[in-house]
Amino acid sequence: MLKVGLLGAGRIGQVHAVNIANNPRSTLVAVSDVFEEAATKLAAAHGADVRSSEDILADPSIDAVLIATSTDTHSNLIEAAAAAGKAVLCEKPVDLSLERARACQAQVKASGRPVMIGFNRRFDPNFKALKDASTRGEIGKSELLSVTSFDPAPPPVSYIKVSGGLFRDMMIHDFDMANFLMGERPVSLRAVGSSVVDPEIGAAGDVDTAVVVMTYADGRIAVIKNSRRAVYGYDQRVELLGAEGLLQANNMLENTMVKSTAAGVSSAKPTYFFLERYMPAYAAEWEAFVSAVLDGTDLPVTLDDGIDALAMAEAATHSARTGKTVDLTL
Amino acid sequence: MLKVGLLGAGRIGQVHAVNIANNPRSTLVAVSDVFEEAATKLAAAHGADVRSSEDILADPSIDAVLIATSTDTHSNLIEAAAAAGKAVLCEKPVDLSLERARACQAQVKASGRPVMIGFNRRFDPNFKALKDASTRGEIGKSELLSVTSFDPAPPPVSYIKVSGGLFRDMMIHDFDMANFLMGERPVSLRAVGSSVVDPEIGAAGDVDTAVVVMTYADGRIAVIKNSRRAVYGYDQRVELLGAEGLLQANNMLENTMVKSTAAGVSSAKPTYFFLERYMPAYAAEWEAFVSAVLDGTDLPVTLDDGIDALAMAEAATHSARTGKTVDLTL
Amino acid sequence: MLKVGLLGAGRIGQVHAVNIANNPRSTLVAVSDVFEEAATKLAAAHGADVRSSEDILADPSIDAVLIATSTDTHSNLIEAAAAAGKAVLCEKPVDLSLERARACQAQVKASGRPVMIGFNRRFDPNFKALKDASTRGEIGKSELLSVTSFDPAPPPVSYIKVSGGLFRDMMIHDFDMANFLMGERPVSLRAVGSSVVDPEIGAAGDVDTAVVVMTYADGRIAVIKNSRRAVYGYDQRVELLGAEGLLQANNMLENTMVKSTAAGVSSAKPTYFFLERYMPAYAAEWEAFVSAVLDGTDLPVTLDDGIDALAMAEAATHSARTGKTVDLTL
Amino acid sequence: MLKVGLLGAGRIGQVHAVNIANNPRSTLVAVSDVFEEAATKLAAAHGADVRSSEDILADPSIDAVLIATSTDTHSNLIEAAAAAGKAVLCEKPVDLSLERARACQAQVKASGRPVMIGFNRRFDPNFKALKDASTRGEIGKSELLSVTSFDPAPPPVSYIKVSGGLFRDMMIHDFDMANFLMGERPVSLRAVGSSVVDPEIGAAGDVDTAVVVMTYADGRIAVIKNSRRAVYGYDQRVELLGAEGLLQANNMLENTMVKSTAAGVSSAKPTYFFLERYMPAYAAEWEAFVSAVLDGTDLPVTLDDGIDALAMAEAATHSARTGKTVDLTL
Repeated sequence: MLKVGLLGAGRIGQVHAVNIANNPRSTLVAVSDVFEEAATKLAAAHGADVRSSEDILADPSIDAVLIATSTDTHSNLIEAAAAAGKAVLCEKPVDLSLERARACQAQVKASGRPVMIGFNRRFDPNFKALKDASTRGEIGKSELLSVTSFDPAPPPVSYIKVSGGLFRDMMIHDFDMANFLMGERPVSLRAVGSSVVDPEIGAAGDVDTAVVVMTYADGRIAVIKNSRRAVYGYDQRVELLGAEGLLQANNMLENTMVKSTAAGVSSAKPTYFFLERYMPAYAAEWEAFVSAVLDGTDLPVTLDDGIDALAMAEAATHSARTGKTVDLTL
Repeated sequence: MLKVGLLGAGRIGQVHAVNIANNPRSTLVAVSDVFEEAATKLAAAHGADVRSSEDILADPSIDAVLIATSTDTHSNLIEAAAAAGKAVLCEKPVDLSLERARACQAQVKASGRPVMIGFNRRFDPNFKALKDASTRGEIGKSELLSVTSFDPAPPPVSYIKVSGGLFRDMMIHDFDMANFLMGERPVSLRAVGSSVVDPEIGAAGDVDTAVVVMTYADGRIAVIKNSRRAVYGYDQRVELLGAEGLLQANNMLENTMVKSTAAGVSSAKPTYFFLERYMPAYAAEWEAFVSAVLDGTDLPVTLDDGIDALAMAEAATHSARTGKTVDLTL
Repeated sequence: MLKVGLLGAGRIGQVHAVNIANNPRSTLVAVSDVFEEAATKLAAAHGADVRSSEDILADPSIDAVLIATSTDTHSNLIEAAAAAGKAVLCEKPVDLSLERARACQAQVKASGRPVMIGFNRRFDPNFKALKDASTRGEIGKSELLSVTSFDPAPPPVSYIKVSGGLFRDMMIHDFDMANFLMGERPVSLRAVGSSVVDPEIGAAGDVDTAVVVMTYADGRIAVIKNSRRAVYGYDQRVELLGAEGLLQANNMLENTMVKSTAAGVSSAKPTYFFLERYMPAYAAEWEAFVSAVLDGTDLPVTLDDGIDALAMAEAATHSARTGKTVDLTL
Repeated sequence: MLKVGLLGAGRIGQVHAVNIANNPRSTLVAVSDVFEEAATKLAAAHGADVRSSEDILADPSIDAVLIATSTDTHSNLIEAAAAAGKAVLCEKPVDLSLERARACQAQVKASGRPVMIGFNRRFDPNFKALKDASTRGEIGKSELLSVTSFDPAPPPVSYIKVSGGLFRDMMIHDFDMANFLMGERPVSLRAVGSSVVDPEIGAAGDVDTAVVVMTYADGRIAVIKNSRRAVYGYDQRVELLGAEGLLQANNMLENTMVKSTAAGVSSAKPTYFFLERYMPAYAAEWEAFVSAVLDGTDLPVTLDDGIDALAMAEAATHSARTGKTVDLTL
């Protein structure tokens, strides 16, 4: 039984708390949050204690911590937790600074502790089915990947300003998805972005619509499309063209009802929010972490994966600003 | 080259004229119609002559006739054409009277001439793909057939009154579809009908919504659903459940566009009219007739098939009135 | 907070236990089962006590019981629980004997206690969306209902023999679905059944494939199709044709991946098992029960609904044996 | 009645011949081809004369010519035909040399004759429905366009060598589609290409897989993906994200049959070949040309459109070679 401390009792921390509690091989023993009320409420719901992060990390009876705090605290907490001997699952991104993240990576490596980054989409049953089919060779050698990832609505501009920008905050998931599905890192990257959705986002120095094209050493190509606004819901799709076919992972719909009238045929929208779409993915992610830690097997997503995606986000930010292609092999 | 006389220049005659003209192995030489203007116009469009039905049947240079006249003339024209040595393709139904149709059947058999009934839906690429998959054993032994057949809008009550009723006029196509897909005739039949769409249809002694359930000697079951009104278009679907799977043939849509907005996801309706849905089927039907006649192979649909469907329509009409199950083995 | 005793710790009892525990307004306090080991294990997982049914019913601190025992005990337990002042949610069917069920109905009515029958499909989000759209008048007046309900594989013949037969055991859900969607009871019913899937089922006196057609006082028609075997998964669909359109509720699929190769286009199957398909429905059903009991509102499904469906199952069993139409108004 | 001379009796010339003959307002009077046998056969099938191109252009009784000859003859024939006073419909591309095409453009402008370029996909009912919905404002302001265009199989390398390369030969259609759907020309373009499908294509100096990203003056973005090989058929799809929704135009399928077995759910592939997919588009294109010429209305696609797409193909060829972004405003 994995004894777990949860750092961060916000929206995503609450999701993790349920998965920690429901998993038969893990138990939630302590919760910390800078807002004590949030920690208190969440701890009560799961019979856990409210404690400070420091206390949790210092407690030798706690095996693992889940870091769901604000991004600016991730690197420090990862380092402290690894130093304290904990197994760690940390929400993405590792850091907004690639340099800081690499320092963290070095320290973690020295500690030898398992640190997993929460790229939950790898555990989505639809994307996983696509990955598995690709791995089984069902479409032969892959050639052209296309990732579509649109949020239902843009966050407040106040959030945009501290987010690190679309490439680090939003497309980082898609960079990891590309690494997951292509099985290696790209060698070049070029990015285009604009604030066609909301000029306020542009005024804040960020983009809301972006396309990145990446190439691979063996000639393969990947395209990622992002938009901060798809009014019909959370649009999360992947297509992989291979020598022997095409794999597509499509959206989950709210229900299966279809209505046909003189006005046309209508059906349900994609699930609106990332929590609806990825709830099963979060549970599967936690299960994968617990299994890897308790059974001593390889982590399915590593801190290195988090660094790779962050490096791509940094390159894309640069490319979108300069219009230049970035060589990722340097 | 098959020289063809077309009897009847109405809506369906016009469809056939194009197919006769476009087929590289047939040519339209003469057209007749009780409305001479219709015949004149259609003949002119295809470089054919306007002649009387009698003239066409008496002309030894004409190999085949296509009968697309009103239903009450079908039996007489089939008999006369077969007696005159023509190959015949006649629109359904053979007759509104099963007794009269059986007399016609006897006379045709004596003539030895090929007479095909125009059950065009057997040639629809979707239903044909289903039949072929079933024949290839892709779902094992068939067990339960379901035919959905809805018209977009009811015909005028004046037509209803002379139509022979829904079972003979509309469901006769579906009875033939059941015979086609199940490969044998049912042993029992029960029918339910009502005029829930339009009470005027009920007042005219007919039904506009009906369900027929049939059983087969080996325990298989078939269900046919008819409605005179589906405001979203011409709804023509078939499902066949077998020991090893399910086959479904779905509607053709007007186009493949999908629109997703905050109001929902919408797509195109089924094609609205039987001519849109079945245009390729009419061409394939004619091709099959030409091939069978010129190459001396078996007709894909026979006069006997027309009689079988008519007998089932008669039984359904009786069952819907009396509430009784009809034994079709007698 | 509703304090709940669970009678029956088998497969379906386990599903209910999770929902009782997860619902913020209910708590599982006791579990009983004739197999004490099953009760012990389930109770332990939820921090509940193992007690006898008698003890649970006699405990005034328990507000409600959920009856998930074998069918032959339902009537007795419903009566005893109502007499003990409990609110009751009982799995379908009320009883295999319509007469016994009606006696139970009378006694419950006298008690004044709320008794709900577990027709979980009413709470399926897809069927519920269809019902809601129909209620909002989105397709005008309904005319023709079609329910398709196929199990993935037949149960053992030993189960068939004690099941009460397909109409009472399996189609009873679809009878309730028809009552739910049509908003009233039918006036006539005719049934056809055969053992085309497995002759052993026929030898045991039951059918494995069946179709029922029902008519309503205002001319509407409903068709239900059942098969004990659909090798591709649990096939649960509904279609409702109305004056202004068609509503369809389709299957849930295992995932959204689509593969296109030279061999064709393939996608995921329907979820294979009723627990996968209806898990959200069971949770919603329990939530509806808790709300009704705690807030004093009307039960969404009543014991009367259970009796109605049972009466239709009995009529169908009779009709399938005799070939006669059953008048349900008598 | 438009009297038409057809220059070129190859595969695409034959398609046009049927549309010219079937259109009630046009008639095919003469056919030319460097292979006289091809011209003879096609002319015979439509009751037209075989003549040289010079003869056809010199004949004042011929109103219009359709140019379906090899690409290297297009510019010369367009100029000669316009000089001879003909209305012209010419297959794409105008020329492989942008410079030569611009000279042709200048000469045509001086002649004042209508010259239309055969971007048939604008007339595809699916893409047209998308364009119409966009024009009606159904998704608000457009923001992000995505065009997927995969051929079923690469052409022979011998063809590749004279084709002008993927961007001029294949993606030129998609450049026109972007111009059609976005309603204006892009301001920047960057291209990536590789020969991941077949190294022989790379050895011949071309690419077989390519992605182009374009930006527009108002911040909008368009992505085009091309592959010379999609073994499942001709994959032609468009997606347009707007402020108020998403429009998608999907593939046409061979039929509507769906098969569900224990192995999965399978359906028909996209139509395999461009002639199957775009047959209705070619007929609609011709109808649009005939209407514009006879009724004196604007051509739906102009020679300028052909030049625009060619300029984009040239820019993409350059960008893919250099890795640089091309400024299209210069």
